[in-house]
Amino acid sequence: MNFSSKILEQAVDHVSQLPGIGKRTALRLVLHLMRQPASQTDELTSALSKMRHDLKFCNDCHNVSDTQLCEICISPKRDRTVLCVVEDIRDVMAIENTAQYRGLYHVLGGKISPMDGVGPQDLNVATLVNRVRDKEIVELIFALSPTIEGDTTNFYIFKQLGDIEVNTSTIARGIAVGDELEFADEVTLGRSILHRVPYEKSLKT
Amino acid sequence: MNFSSKILEQAVDHVSQLPGIGKRTALRLVLHLMRQPASQTDELTSALSKMRHDLKFCNDCHNVSDTQLCEICISPKRDRTVLCVVEDIRDVMAIENTAQYRGLYHVLGGKISPMDGVGPQDLNVATLVNRVRDKEIVELIFALSPTIEGDTTNFYIFKQLGDIEVNTSTIARGIAVGDELEFADEVTLGRSILHRVPYEKSLKT
Repeated sequence: MNFSSKILEQAVDHVSQLPGIGKRTALRLVLHLMRQPASQTDELTSALSKMRHDLKFCNDCHNVSDTQLCEICISPKRDRTVLCVVEDIRDVMAIENTAQYRGLYHVLGGKISPMDGVGPQDLNVATLVNRVRDKEIVELIFALSPTIEGDTTNFYIFKQLGDIEVNTSTIARGIAVGDELEFADEVTLGRSILHRVPYEKSLKT
Repeated sequence: MNFSSKILEQAVDHVSQLPGIGKRTALRLVLHLMRQPASQTDELTSALSKMRHDLKFCNDCHNVSDTQLCEICISPKRDRTVLCVVEDIRDVMAIENTAQYRGLYHVLGGKISPMDGVGPQDLNVATLVNRVRDKEIVELIFALSPTIEGDTTNFYIFKQLGDIEVNTSTIARGIAVGDELEFADEVTLGRSILHRVPYEKSLKT
């Protein structure tokens, strides 16, 4: 692109470094900011700057937090004997939105993926093993995506736990609520039959 | 969404105010920034801030510029007798990329669109009429989008010019290069026949 302004070009360059945003979209975004009051840009830049420099990760579960320990870890209402292992802080938010889980979390920060150059040493596995060993954890729930990478990560953690006494479980895999059976893939449908649930139990949501 | 951090929530809120960016995309973008070195966020915020506060608009043509007059307006290589009227600075960039035009521009800053609450008084029409009256302009090219709003804007400007002596033209409307004739809409195809070009002339690109 042929910019008539270096200042504009640099702004577009930096915005287009964000994932999924090309030069054209970046130009549209910065021109939008130019049409809005300068205060909007000021608030945006200060919010981003504050986030990057002041946002902390919880010392226990590695969730994002404004303090040393996150809201969930310090809450007296949470069940401290159950630990849910998730890939990302977005998964914490998704599970919290269901209001079905009252235990604690452990954010791995990714999943083992040799294709993307992510190995076990890049994840918060060591701190997880320490938590399970040192705290009164009764159950560890693997809530990673049901993909090859997710399953590999689950298995790696399971092996790392060694002979620590703890119950492990994974979230149920089956037909999504509202989905048509005929369009489900074979593996998912197969698992949903294999891991069928007593009818009376399925009535309790 | 259920954020465990106010700082994160504010950053997501501000990013999601940008057009076409929802909360989920905003969260993905800010989490990307969190994984990158802090310098990337710092460069992004300072580039945006600099743009919003330091970017100027050319006094003559209203194109973006780092100086009082833009590069195109001060260039001695441009033909100062031809003026191309465009809606937006993106159109200037698009036409410059063709390398087919050596005249000057006039950026209206939009087109007349009562639906969006944009009237003639919101556009740089008065400065355009003054330029045509005061400078040695021989031809005025309307290069607005061939939509109802674009046509309305062209006609409004044409009327405003009154009895100022100047040739006016619009960019050619027809079948796009590389397009299949059978898929063209009737109006475009009709215009392309009506405004057909002598074959020898069409060979010169």
